[in-house]
Amino acid sequence: MATPKPLRVGMVGYAFMGAAHSHAWRTAPRFFDLPLDPRLTALCGRNDDGVRAAAAKLGWDSVETDWRRLIERDDIDLIDICTPGDTHAEIAIAALEAGKHVLCEKPLANSVAEAERMTEVARDAAARGVFSMCGFSYRRTPALALARRMVAEGRLGQIRHVRAQYLQDWLSDENAPMTWRLDKSKSGSGTLGDIGAHSIDAAQWVTGQNITGVSAVLETFVHERPLAGNLVGLGGHGDTDADAPRGTVTVDDAAIFSVRFSPDGFDGDGTSPGAVGVFESTRYALGRKNAMRLEVNGSLGSLAFDFEDMNVLSFYDAAESPDAGFRRIFVTEPEHPYVGNWWPTGHGLGYEHGFTHQVVDLVTAIGAGEQPSPSFADALQVQRVLSAVETSASEESRWTKVN
Amino acid sequence: MATPKPLRVGMVGYAFMGAAHSHAWRTAPRFFDLPLDPRLTALCGRNDDGVRAAAAKLGWDSVETDWRRLIERDDIDLIDICTPGDTHAEIAIAALEAGKHVLCEKPLANSVAEAERMTEVARDAAARGVFSMCGFSYRRTPALALARRMVAEGRLGQIRHVRAQYLQDWLSDENAPMTWRLDKSKSGSGTLGDIGAHSIDAAQWVTGQNITGVSAVLETFVHERPLAGNLVGLGGHGDTDADAPRGTVTVDDAAIFSVRFSPDGFDGDGTSPGAVGVFESTRYALGRKNAMRLEVNGSLGSLAFDFEDMNVLSFYDAAESPDAGFRRIFVTEPEHPYVGNWWPTGHGLGYEHGFTHQVVDLVTAIGAGEQPSPSFADALQVQRVLSAVETSASEESRWTKVN
Amino acid sequence: MATPKPLRVGMVGYAFMGAAHSHAWRTAPRFFDLPLDPRLTALCGRNDDGVRAAAAKLGWDSVETDWRRLIERDDIDLIDICTPGDTHAEIAIAALEAGKHVLCEKPLANSVAEAERMTEVARDAAARGVFSMCGFSYRRTPALALARRMVAEGRLGQIRHVRAQYLQDWLSDENAPMTWRLDKSKSGSGTLGDIGAHSIDAAQWVTGQNITGVSAVLETFVHERPLAGNLVGLGGHGDTDADAPRGTVTVDDAAIFSVRFSPDGFDGDGTSPGAVGVFESTRYALGRKNAMRLEVNGSLGSLAFDFEDMNVLSFYDAAESPDAGFRRIFVTEPEHPYVGNWWPTGHGLGYEHGFTHQVVDLVTAIGAGEQPSPSFADALQVQRVLSAVETSASEESRWTKVN
Amino acid sequence: MATPKPLRVGMVGYAFMGAAHSHAWRTAPRFFDLPLDPRLTALCGRNDDGVRAAAAKLGWDSVETDWRRLIERDDIDLIDICTPGDTHAEIAIAALEAGKHVLCEKPLANSVAEAERMTEVARDAAARGVFSMCGFSYRRTPALALARRMVAEGRLGQIRHVRAQYLQDWLSDENAPMTWRLDKSKSGSGTLGDIGAHSIDAAQWVTGQNITGVSAVLETFVHERPLAGNLVGLGGHGDTDADAPRGTVTVDDAAIFSVRFSPDGFDGDGTSPGAVGVFESTRYALGRKNAMRLEVNGSLGSLAFDFEDMNVLSFYDAAESPDAGFRRIFVTEPEHPYVGNWWPTGHGLGYEHGFTHQVVDLVTAIGAGEQPSPSFADALQVQRVLSAVETSASEESRWTKVN
Repeated sequence: MATPKPLRVGMVGYAFMGAAHSHAWRTAPRFFDLPLDPRLTALCGRNDDGVRAAAAKLGWDSVETDWRRLIERDDIDLIDICTPGDTHAEIAIAALEAGKHVLCEKPLANSVAEAERMTEVARDAAARGVFSMCGFSYRRTPALALARRMVAEGRLGQIRHVRAQYLQDWLSDENAPMTWRLDKSKSGSGTLGDIGAHSIDAAQWVTGQNITGVSAVLETFVHERPLAGNLVGLGGHGDTDADAPRGTVTVDDAAIFSVRFSPDGFDGDGTSPGAVGVFESTRYALGRKNAMRLEVNGSLGSLAFDFEDMNVLSFYDAAESPDAGFRRIFVTEPEHPYVGNWWPTGHGLGYEHGFTHQVVDLVTAIGAGEQPSPSFADALQVQRVLSAVETSASEESRWTKVN
Repeated sequence: MATPKPLRVGMVGYAFMGAAHSHAWRTAPRFFDLPLDPRLTALCGRNDDGVRAAAAKLGWDSVETDWRRLIERDDIDLIDICTPGDTHAEIAIAALEAGKHVLCEKPLANSVAEAERMTEVARDAAARGVFSMCGFSYRRTPALALARRMVAEGRLGQIRHVRAQYLQDWLSDENAPMTWRLDKSKSGSGTLGDIGAHSIDAAQWVTGQNITGVSAVLETFVHERPLAGNLVGLGGHGDTDADAPRGTVTVDDAAIFSVRFSPDGFDGDGTSPGAVGVFESTRYALGRKNAMRLEVNGSLGSLAFDFEDMNVLSFYDAAESPDAGFRRIFVTEPEHPYVGNWWPTGHGLGYEHGFTHQVVDLVTAIGAGEQPSPSFADALQVQRVLSAVETSASEESRWTKVN
Repeated sequence: MATPKPLRVGMVGYAFMGAAHSHAWRTAPRFFDLPLDPRLTALCGRNDDGVRAAAAKLGWDSVETDWRRLIERDDIDLIDICTPGDTHAEIAIAALEAGKHVLCEKPLANSVAEAERMTEVARDAAARGVFSMCGFSYRRTPALALARRMVAEGRLGQIRHVRAQYLQDWLSDENAPMTWRLDKSKSGSGTLGDIGAHSIDAAQWVTGQNITGVSAVLETFVHERPLAGNLVGLGGHGDTDADAPRGTVTVDDAAIFSVRFSPDGFDGDGTSPGAVGVFESTRYALGRKNAMRLEVNGSLGSLAFDFEDMNVLSFYDAAESPDAGFRRIFVTEPEHPYVGNWWPTGHGLGYEHGFTHQVVDLVTAIGAGEQPSPSFADALQVQRVLSAVETSASEESRWTKVN
Repeated sequence: MATPKPLRVGMVGYAFMGAAHSHAWRTAPRFFDLPLDPRLTALCGRNDDGVRAAAAKLGWDSVETDWRRLIERDDIDLIDICTPGDTHAEIAIAALEAGKHVLCEKPLANSVAEAERMTEVARDAAARGVFSMCGFSYRRTPALALARRMVAEGRLGQIRHVRAQYLQDWLSDENAPMTWRLDKSKSGSGTLGDIGAHSIDAAQWVTGQNITGVSAVLETFVHERPLAGNLVGLGGHGDTDADAPRGTVTVDDAAIFSVRFSPDGFDGDGTSPGAVGVFESTRYALGRKNAMRLEVNGSLGSLAFDFEDMNVLSFYDAAESPDAGFRRIFVTEPEHPYVGNWWPTGHGLGYEHGFTHQVVDLVTAIGAGEQPSPSFADALQVQRVLSAVETSASEESRWTKVN
């Protein structure tokens, strides 16, 4: 096999997502055969000392402190955007227009308008062979990828119910510190865009059906929080100081919404009635640490997933009745998506593997000159659902179409 | 101990609920000390042969074929109503006015108006020492009773989230037969009143908070079903005949609704912001057989319950952090509600024990001359939530106050 | 249907097992069609006041204070023995010789010699139409009965592994009181005969293979315990008094043994190599309340059961690979053993249902003039395993044949 | 912070373990602060083409085809031995005598005699500042490390029971191919050394008690298997050919043994009676893919772990009675061992993280000039248990001391 050509990556941002992406760029070629050879060429951040230390730690070859400069560099083929949502549109558009491929963290943007502009630019760029993808990394969890495969194979029959929960608890303590994720101007929304967006993407992707309408309730439980020095981290059990000056939480703490799905799933004939779904996202479900759960009930079978037991997919096949039961599939067989490149059967993967698989899929698509998935257009559809949720919540939960 | 006076019971209806109630009346005095001694005096049903056979099988001393005649009998102290919802109001009101105590199956009635009349009559009767109770039997599951105790003790802190699911699958097969439960004129509603009512009662009772408003979606997946000879049973894996004449399903198959709770829970000071909740009831969740689930998240802890593992309550205590985790309490200790009268630790109870405990609580209250719980007034509150759900669903999911 | 003839029962003993048996005799005819109609005719116990109070509570028509007198009564058809093991042989033999059917609690006796005499007498009695059964009630748990059916149907293929644990924790507290179960002269052995016997019977019955040899370790962790007034109960969280006078524990607290099974299972051809098994019984496994667990691995599939989730059987079918997984069968379908006579799908049973099913099987066999199962001969085989375990443990764990 | 000095690694072997170790050497410095900077300097294997391809894929800078040559190289500081057990002693001893640190895969050797020689050499080398460690990587699973911490803190009280299972199923199919792991001359033993050794090490390490004696049964279910071209892999769902020539399996397929532990655990006072334990290892437990399970019951609490849910530790604290229950600790908090260097709470780790943590602990110890743990002496103790198991099994399960 000839040595693949390099794919020189420039990444913006180096917090939680930056660390996950760095690991993925470094690890993917060690376990998968890729058509291009990723290089950790340049890391970009505003703080010079910070970005230098991060580059050394995370293994990047050079640094930049201005993302515009990064985009101008000739030795960069792809821009990986790991910053808060308010910066996505500007960076992504500039990068695509400069001929760089783009991987952009989710949610795609902080508004439908931004997402629409990004999608338009991405579509034009793709026509020139410059590709973009949005980082809905949960799609790359083997158990969820297997779920999609099983629905697409018709093993669930007609889909009737979707229930999607994304439950965390790191804000339960009312003295947990203020972060950028609680500032609407930075994050666009709260739990809705941060984790609810993952649920929406996963539910649409697994079922092959789009959400067409919503009825929603948003709630904020804690309206002020102590300001900490560093507002960048995710939070966790940080030092909290009840007497510190307080910042105002401007986003939702919890999002609950009912939805309907389009009648055209994988079978594409539009004769299915379309499923109903219920979604809940919160960071106040004490004891639930990262419970990204998805359950799908069809006319022939059901699937259930919980990211807290991420290597497992539960499957119920009604044909096995009366001895049917939810089957705990330990998704570690070589036949399962992504798994064959890792360890022998029974040796589970972890959180970061989703990012490695994301790199694999992205690089494979770029190498083949094909549009990676999820495209910005796919991410725009998620953005429209997020927007409809906010509209419905602001209008007494009135049913709101997604468009 | 002096022998307790008899409490002579007349029961109307002898299908699923009739069998459960018969067992409860017979079993309660064998395991619990009761102030009155229940007697299975008379069983009432319209079909003479049917009621005679049932009385012999279930152990009742005599039969009636007209419930009015049953109420007239001098040797009956309590009327136990196990018929479909369209008959509850008439029977219960007549019985109370005749001076008989009443145990009435849920939902209390098929409309708020009926439930209001029943509640009024019940209030008057109670003033005369004639008591009534509605059969929300899930309250008597030891794990749910323990849940309520723990919330009331403040171990969860301020309640923020409730998620209540009641998932069954016995209608997933579109050729499962028509039953009275799918006929709105008999049952009042579908999954909503049949199983959703249990979730509503349990959520309000465990949290000590009433639901104040809802936004709802109702859905019917299968609109016609084969008519079977016997429309009385619950269903199950009965003979289904795709070519049989078909009846029209006039009720909801699935109910999804978001709610808000009143800010005054057990602490009663009205300063709590009130929880948000999400409810889902369906008989189309393949693989979920009787998954009556309730999860409550507070500021100090969380509780989770699933009737498919009915002897277990999961409890998360944030104070145990960082080694906190959902604690699988096997609710079989003598200190747990109802449990001490049964078997040694670790020997679980079954579905019908809830009905036995219901008899215990009812007879204990009557013996003490006190209003049993849940009263018809409590059941009316559930009925109002059901009604608000139907209103919201018919008005584009618009937020609808419960009143 | 003609009214069945009565089957008049006289029961000896009225502690834990007596309450369970009383409930079973009373309940069985209400849910199952029996060829004979059980009557709770007489209860026998040495203490006159005690037995009178128990009879009133448990619903027996008359009392005796001498089991010999009970056996002499003409109005008794069956003797139900619920006393400690040291009395089984004498009562059972006398009853059988007096022409009474016998239900005897397990373990059958406190020694192989006693069990052999009982078996001989039982064999002679059966020839005269007088039947006997040993109370291995766990066989009547629907999930275990389903397990046996699945093995017998060949769905597991050749059996290779059995792992059986019976874990309780009620002696973990070293000040838990002394009971008759800790006195070898009464109970014969400790955890071994009390709960290990259940595991042995269940493993042999489910696999259709007998244990042919053992290697064992027995251990006693606490050698003296406070004497309580009442030594009859099972224990639980009773009042314990560290300063009370102490009695000597003369039985094992834990039993661990490896076994081999006979090569002739349900296929009966003796060409199977025979499975290996590992057994563990203890009352010191803190947190395990009644974890009677059985797992069987065959060449085609596996089964796993835990009595703490008694309505569930887990089944793994290798033919479903690569999407195979342990299937959580909720054993509440009408097609499952015993279940169709109870509640709709999804409504679980409890501990005492095993005793009701035991009555059903016993009365059905007597009515048909057939030997009930497990016979005393079956129970003798269990006794021989218990004896081999004790022999091996006393001889440095040396491999010991069962014979 | 000054740049740490390099630690130049030479690794022998590049199959399953080689891939895991390569990932660990590359990843550890990206997430942890290490006193030395690991370099993937040279990879060694006998087949020139194979080792070159592997080095390119796994990221090693150079190759060797003779391990002696590797050891001679001046630019190598540490030898990492990932070959079958029959080669460990020779390579490790040569490396240590040449002044190279050594990381040696488990089991340490194929015999006690070899392990004793290795231990002696390792002791001498340590005196010269040349260190060695054996690769019992399961110690580095955060949940097991937390288990050890909790036992050491006394939260379980006096240890009474250990039950350790290591269940896999990849040999259940009797046509699964022959591998070196089934050839006693290469692997030393079968399931016993391959996976049972992990259970023994984990049990001793978590409890702080050594095993002092055993009684054992070994079994081989399938005696001949088809020869495949490549005998190096672990197996899995490879192509199996029932008609292929067959090789003879010369190792155990299943190992079952009872043990006793030394009375001196973490408290070290020797007054504890010592726990009893039961161990089972097999590759024929259909449906169990990598169920490395450990349960420990003490006088105050219990712990349970299953590698199939590797981010969870279950803990029972009797002090919480009557509301005690096994607490599902999701071991993803920053306070938990190793976890703080990875992702936010709730984002689980995978199989390979244990190897990364192993590198962290090894490099940290070398940097500090301290003996890493587990030392060869610790691994020798495991080897002695393995040997005692084989002796007992060959002598009718007779109790056999470990020495």
